[in-house]
Amino acid sequence: MQFLSDNAAAVHPRVWDAMRAADAPQPPYDTDALSQQLDAVFADLFGRPCTVLWVATGTAANCLALASMVPPHGGVICHREAHIETDEGGAPGFYTHGAKLILAEGEGAKLTPASLDAVIAGIRKDVHQVQPQAVSVTQASEYGRAYRPAEMAAMAAAAQAHGLALHVDGARFANAVAYLNCSPWEACQGAAALSFGCVKNGGMSAEALVFFDEELADVARLRRKRAGHLQSKGRFLAAQVLAMVEGGLWLDNARAANAAAQELAGAAGERLLHPVEANELFVRLNSAERDALRRAGFSFYDWGADAARLVTAWNSDPGHVAALARAIAAL
Amino acid sequence: MQFLSDNAAAVHPRVWDAMRAADAPQPPYDTDALSQQLDAVFADLFGRPCTVLWVATGTAANCLALASMVPPHGGVICHREAHIETDEGGAPGFYTHGAKLILAEGEGAKLTPASLDAVIAGIRKDVHQVQPQAVSVTQASEYGRAYRPAEMAAMAAAAQAHGLALHVDGARFANAVAYLNCSPWEACQGAAALSFGCVKNGGMSAEALVFFDEELADVARLRRKRAGHLQSKGRFLAAQVLAMVEGGLWLDNARAANAAAQELAGAAGERLLHPVEANELFVRLNSAERDALRRAGFSFYDWGADAARLVTAWNSDPGHVAALARAIAAL
Amino acid sequence: MQFLSDNAAAVHPRVWDAMRAADAPQPPYDTDALSQQLDAVFADLFGRPCTVLWVATGTAANCLALASMVPPHGGVICHREAHIETDEGGAPGFYTHGAKLILAEGEGAKLTPASLDAVIAGIRKDVHQVQPQAVSVTQASEYGRAYRPAEMAAMAAAAQAHGLALHVDGARFANAVAYLNCSPWEACQGAAALSFGCVKNGGMSAEALVFFDEELADVARLRRKRAGHLQSKGRFLAAQVLAMVEGGLWLDNARAANAAAQELAGAAGERLLHPVEANELFVRLNSAERDALRRAGFSFYDWGADAARLVTAWNSDPGHVAALARAIAAL
Amino acid sequence: MQFLSDNAAAVHPRVWDAMRAADAPQPPYDTDALSQQLDAVFADLFGRPCTVLWVATGTAANCLALASMVPPHGGVICHREAHIETDEGGAPGFYTHGAKLILAEGEGAKLTPASLDAVIAGIRKDVHQVQPQAVSVTQASEYGRAYRPAEMAAMAAAAQAHGLALHVDGARFANAVAYLNCSPWEACQGAAALSFGCVKNGGMSAEALVFFDEELADVARLRRKRAGHLQSKGRFLAAQVLAMVEGGLWLDNARAANAAAQELAGAAGERLLHPVEANELFVRLNSAERDALRRAGFSFYDWGADAARLVTAWNSDPGHVAALARAIAAL
Repeated sequence: MQFLSDNAAAVHPRVWDAMRAADAPQPPYDTDALSQQLDAVFADLFGRPCTVLWVATGTAANCLALASMVPPHGGVICHREAHIETDEGGAPGFYTHGAKLILAEGEGAKLTPASLDAVIAGIRKDVHQVQPQAVSVTQASEYGRAYRPAEMAAMAAAAQAHGLALHVDGARFANAVAYLNCSPWEACQGAAALSFGCVKNGGMSAEALVFFDEELADVARLRRKRAGHLQSKGRFLAAQVLAMVEGGLWLDNARAANAAAQELAGAAGERLLHPVEANELFVRLNSAERDALRRAGFSFYDWGADAARLVTAWNSDPGHVAALARAIAAL
Repeated sequence: MQFLSDNAAAVHPRVWDAMRAADAPQPPYDTDALSQQLDAVFADLFGRPCTVLWVATGTAANCLALASMVPPHGGVICHREAHIETDEGGAPGFYTHGAKLILAEGEGAKLTPASLDAVIAGIRKDVHQVQPQAVSVTQASEYGRAYRPAEMAAMAAAAQAHGLALHVDGARFANAVAYLNCSPWEACQGAAALSFGCVKNGGMSAEALVFFDEELADVARLRRKRAGHLQSKGRFLAAQVLAMVEGGLWLDNARAANAAAQELAGAAGERLLHPVEANELFVRLNSAERDALRRAGFSFYDWGADAARLVTAWNSDPGHVAALARAIAAL
Repeated sequence: MQFLSDNAAAVHPRVWDAMRAADAPQPPYDTDALSQQLDAVFADLFGRPCTVLWVATGTAANCLALASMVPPHGGVICHREAHIETDEGGAPGFYTHGAKLILAEGEGAKLTPASLDAVIAGIRKDVHQVQPQAVSVTQASEYGRAYRPAEMAAMAAAAQAHGLALHVDGARFANAVAYLNCSPWEACQGAAALSFGCVKNGGMSAEALVFFDEELADVARLRRKRAGHLQSKGRFLAAQVLAMVEGGLWLDNARAANAAAQELAGAAGERLLHPVEANELFVRLNSAERDALRRAGFSFYDWGADAARLVTAWNSDPGHVAALARAIAAL
Repeated sequence: MQFLSDNAAAVHPRVWDAMRAADAPQPPYDTDALSQQLDAVFADLFGRPCTVLWVATGTAANCLALASMVPPHGGVICHREAHIETDEGGAPGFYTHGAKLILAEGEGAKLTPASLDAVIAGIRKDVHQVQPQAVSVTQASEYGRAYRPAEMAAMAAAAQAHGLALHVDGARFANAVAYLNCSPWEACQGAAALSFGCVKNGGMSAEALVFFDEELADVARLRRKRAGHLQSKGRFLAAQVLAMVEGGLWLDNARAANAAAQELAGAAGERLLHPVEANELFVRLNSAERDALRRAGFSFYDWGADAARLVTAWNSDPGHVAALARAIAAL
């Protein structure tokens, strides 16, 4: 009974179907008919012009976005616990050619205008200190917290006031939108680029890098090839992305994962370290309690010495979820 | 009737089957059971210890290999028409952090020990000139020419004599081995790393980067993550690679593509600019002749002003091939 | 009356003399007779084999050292307030091709084995997190604190235990050695490379990058050229460095600066934020007090809202020092 | 009797004087009064607004210029024998983060609009090939050839037509202007940046990087610090540059070097491989002849198997020059 992560979950049947259907003669790279539909489909979804590039991983999506926004001598402000800082193996340094990640604080791994201001106030405006050109936020955050539309708007305004481009890491964007019950744009408003995650949400090997600023997309297109991410059979990535968006599959899947998380949250109650707003739970569990759960057949990661991280997925087994909820409640 | 390239050909049914079979619960990245089999399967294939990393593209495979061999201040000797020089959008410069591609000559886009010696003789051994640490050859070459085992052995010896690591770009390695009718190792002997192509040969989105030097693999593993190429559902890439090797599918597919090329070569006769040893043909055809072929329904790329490039694939339609052969013969 | 910094102080007459004497016909770059003496002179100074490269700035010295120790996908542990982190305009990211500065804590901007252990304990040993290969300490630290020989030995042992190369940023190494009254090696023992500062200590445009590991020096020599730091009239840089070492000028100058700092420290008393062990003072002074001192003709930098940084130099005017001491005491 | 190079020649007395005069209290980096004069002095010299940065080497000047013009995924067109391609130890790859040097042809190591067109015609406009953003020419060229004002204007027009920024490597710009007897601007017209050489022409350790495009200068200023080239006692570099320009010293020195070269050229006559237009001569001399000259006390570099390179300097000894001229004539 697996609650380790959503990142290796099964591929949704409709994604499989779309991939099979894509195996017809098509021109290579992103010149196929499916890849050519992406801009329009996302423009429709976000209610504004988009330029969309598929890439194989969230790390590539995030770092191509940042590399299009920030020169090598520049910097990106992000949360101290952002994925780009802690879990991408130095990929931002690679893609941006050594630009600096400038770390800011914020509850629940969310930035605020105040935390942004604070970090910028500490930077002298001279050539001896790295000057930021972008800010990256994660929707939902590394602690599964969602920026409300008003919060996102405030972040966008703060970024703009400082002349920073806004990047949204949306590895679990679907979970955030499902939770917020807002329009997709409201959940990332003001972004110049959004890493729209699919892999954790029923996809196989495609994320959508959505640019709301076409000039950045033009740079990213060159950088994608330069990074070896321009697959010749790109139609199979486009097919995955289109299948996720079509008929709202992305939201359906996210809602399923969120619902499972809520069921667990109800059982965890006071043990929760963070409010549960997506599909991740951080639960205070001591070593003996974690051992007991594992003996009962549940797998998950420790989170420090006194807690566990539980992640649900689009296809979390309802029986497993119920069992885990009961087991936690019974501790 | 498509002879543009093999790079967007259909995915082989056995690859599809393997991918579907891989959609069971598995740990992420390359910790799944399929990824864990790669080293052994390739060790068997090559008759020596291997460390194998899947990646999504040939560009990524080539450049991760080179980045593991060459420091940023170093250089890679390759043919003036090598894919890494002409068609990877500067990816070698990105992955190696600006190491230099040092260009050598050679008939049919093949290097020789003499051409290697010549380029090295022109490099002063001082800090003002970039010193090479690796040489990259393409098997089969950009003109579809295969290095015979003895030629490859001679290149390896020359590389070793100059203290250079040997990389083999095997985007069409299968076609070369099928043509040479030798063991896989004979076709790349002496290599420290081989980009073992699958995508052009019936795969979807996975190439095998095969290291015969484990230390290089250790570096490449870190760099793969840093380049955003460590997919979380890596089992689907491993499945593709395993399917290609299993039962010799890779050679069967290559033989089919090569046979189609030979059929066309027979028709092209004196028009051939290069002997046909793989699945690419470079055929002298003037503008009017190319127009005629296109009007007859054949698609292909111009190759300069007076020739065309024709590429066959594992699934080239026998009827299309026969029709093109007839059409060329009739010109 | 200038206490802003030592970094623009006058050039010592003996440095001038040595430069003038160097203006005779000599071969270029570092093949001149003076550059060729550096290894031996520093071997003598440190009591062990050295390979010494001159460079124009401390930033270049630090970053060439780090780039020789750390691959692009690697990391360097340093103090949160280290110069390489806060004041080199992102140069470490440039020279190392995006390696990560991993920040550690420590009183007085000094690392300890415990702070090193703490930061390493937080790094998972997998490809998703950047793995460190080096640690950089500053002697004297950014707060003018000196590592005692035993402390340096302990840091070296801790670095070795973790498999990390040790770099010592010695922009004010002379001040530290003068304060510690130990041998030069005792003050940097265990280092693989030392940035031996001259510019702040009476030089003009030359620092000595001292390698105690010859293989690193071989890399740095190539990187120096690649960074545009191999001056063709290198004899003038070598002359500066040799003049600093000859007859112990480096220590004489440092002692003068330290003595001036001690005179001010005596006056500052309880106001000192850090013990004064080199030529920098951090003095609690409110805004009104700073204004008063400035009106009296003293120039210096604010240090946050409630303090000032005062820096003495080898040629600080004794009258100015005495005047400032009196002024502070009188506040 | 030294004709190896001008790159290690003596420092002119007026440069020494200016440096000594600069050793008064001044703020650091480029905030001193001398550095602050550079823009105006060069604006006067070139008859248009300039932004001028001092740097220590020609390699740094060239590469900072290119890095300000070209993104990492871009390219720079230059001659196959340009110094940036052959003798800067890969520095362009370092500074530009792996942008490609795209090599063009041209007699005397000079590009022409036709050679520029030819190389651009060979580049497909897609993401698979590196797209150029700049072109770099050398005035005087690596064979000591000067672009006439009309030639430079034609190059500038061609660059503009292709949307390329123009960089002029002027390591021996003074020699070119002295030969052409034109205004400085005529000799580099259309350039966005000029590396204005001083070191080979009587300076010690300062080149002027002159931007005619202020936005590029703003980038280069950040990159200079990031490259460790922002010296804290920058006043000594500014002093050198100002001394070179003041009273036309740069042209006087260049004329002296050129006159010495012409004296040798007269003696070499038919042996010259290239017309002599600056201070470098390439002279057909077989091995025995070179031996004879060396036995007679002349030092110089071989240039391939059948020639020698002779370089004169601002302070070439008239007696040595006359002796060499006689010796060559007598062969």
